[in-house]
Amino acid sequence: MANLLQEVGGNHGVALWGRADSGFASMPGMDHLIFVATRMQIRMEAYPKWGDLVRLETFFAEDGRLCTRRDWHITDATTGAYLGAATSTWVTINSETRKLSKLPEEVRTRWLNLSPSPPRIVLPVGETKRKLEDFPEDAALVGPVVSARRTDMDPNGHINNVCYMSWALEAVPRHVYNGYHLREVEMDFKAECHAGDLVEVLGHPLTDTSNGNGCAQQFLHTLRKAGGGKGAEVWRARTTWVPKGKVASR
Amino acid sequence: MANLLQEVGGNHGVALWGRADSGFASMPGMDHLIFVATRMQIRMEAYPKWGDLVRLETFFAEDGRLCTRRDWHITDATTGAYLGAATSTWVTINSETRKLSKLPEEVRTRWLNLSPSPPRIVLPVGETKRKLEDFPEDAALVGPVVSARRTDMDPNGHINNVCYMSWALEAVPRHVYNGYHLREVEMDFKAECHAGDLVEVLGHPLTDTSNGNGCAQQFLHTLRKAGGGKGAEVWRARTTWVPKGKVASR
Repeated sequence: MANLLQEVGGNHGVALWGRADSGFASMPGMDHLIFVATRMQIRMEAYPKWGDLVRLETFFAEDGRLCTRRDWHITDATTGAYLGAATSTWVTINSETRKLSKLPEEVRTRWLNLSPSPPRIVLPVGETKRKLEDFPEDAALVGPVVSARRTDMDPNGHINNVCYMSWALEAVPRHVYNGYHLREVEMDFKAECHAGDLVEVLGHPLTDTSNGNGCAQQFLHTLRKAGGGKGAEVWRARTTWVPKGKVASR
Repeated sequence: MANLLQEVGGNHGVALWGRADSGFASMPGMDHLIFVATRMQIRMEAYPKWGDLVRLETFFAEDGRLCTRRDWHITDATTGAYLGAATSTWVTINSETRKLSKLPEEVRTRWLNLSPSPPRIVLPVGETKRKLEDFPEDAALVGPVVSARRTDMDPNGHINNVCYMSWALEAVPRHVYNGYHLREVEMDFKAECHAGDLVEVLGHPLTDTSNGNGCAQQFLHTLRKAGGGKGAEVWRARTTWVPKGKVASR
């Protein structure tokens, strides 16, 4: 599902900005400006199964003075049933100075003209942008050290969010991974990660996951660069899991 | 591209066999019988770029007494230009005894009725099923040990071919990975691999790759389980690379 969100977001970008000969999105006024995600939250009410037709809608909005937002609304294309939603926060940086930058006014105006007004709210206000607690000193769950692969990179040479999620899932206890559905993931992007980097995968339960009591379970996750001492944190997330059967897989 | 081949092959299977409530393909007469790929070969004349529309055609054929074949033909959907082709060889095994099994006659008949006759040849005869040489004792190229991820698994709990390729690419020298297009990959599947397995990624040049002479380069690749001594070989492949600019990216 995270792959689909990314695909649709990218195609929406190309549709709005035009497509360069290289095949990537390009837009006048955006020279040296790139978008970097700082946060993403995905919440699924139900999962489609193989072969189901899924409809994804996506749209932009402003988010304060320096940020933009991309939201997604996910439904079953056949029945119209609501499946889930996602929201993400982006900053604009200058790719040469690496500094935060404001969107040029003409770019901002064009996008707002192409965005729903007022903005569509895909997740209830107050349930987004909740702070992620600090990751504890002693992680209870330790996954393998992963090495970022060349094929994990996006066209900017960065590891993408789908990849971070797949790494983090390695540290989830087997009985949760197999017996629960991932209902929600809230993630903060902290630092860049490139192919060849070695990354530690750590997790920590926020709930009592030992007794299989049939309740929702929560975990905190961190990914940090491996090496001497405590490496830079590249990604932190909170995941919420519900027992299979309590969230239908339609 | 390998992901698209897999997607289309899977959908073709569901279209022919019907779709079970679980979302997976199911077909009368195929109880306990599963298909296992033993070989796959992909050859690209040109790569599509992001946003291009690609047409994939796929079809079955018999391949001797115990094997079946799935071929793919890849074209640019807009211009009709030929982009590439792929072929794969499959055996049928009983999922309980793990032994080779013949296809039930009614299944065989149904499939042949739905296949082109005579079979379409996607790659020139004599250029498929070429033997892969033994992997040398002293590998010149050593990639990172990779740990198979949960999200690398297919619904049967096996690591898929796309994943093997992504691991093997880690051992290709940087100047080849960045300066060449992957024109062809020929791969033999040797053993099963599951989530959590640690796998060594080894490569060996078959051509003189040092002088950047602008010629095609070839590598032999192997993936084998890590651990004491020489672990089981799970995958072996040969890749052929041509300098960018000699194969157009259209």
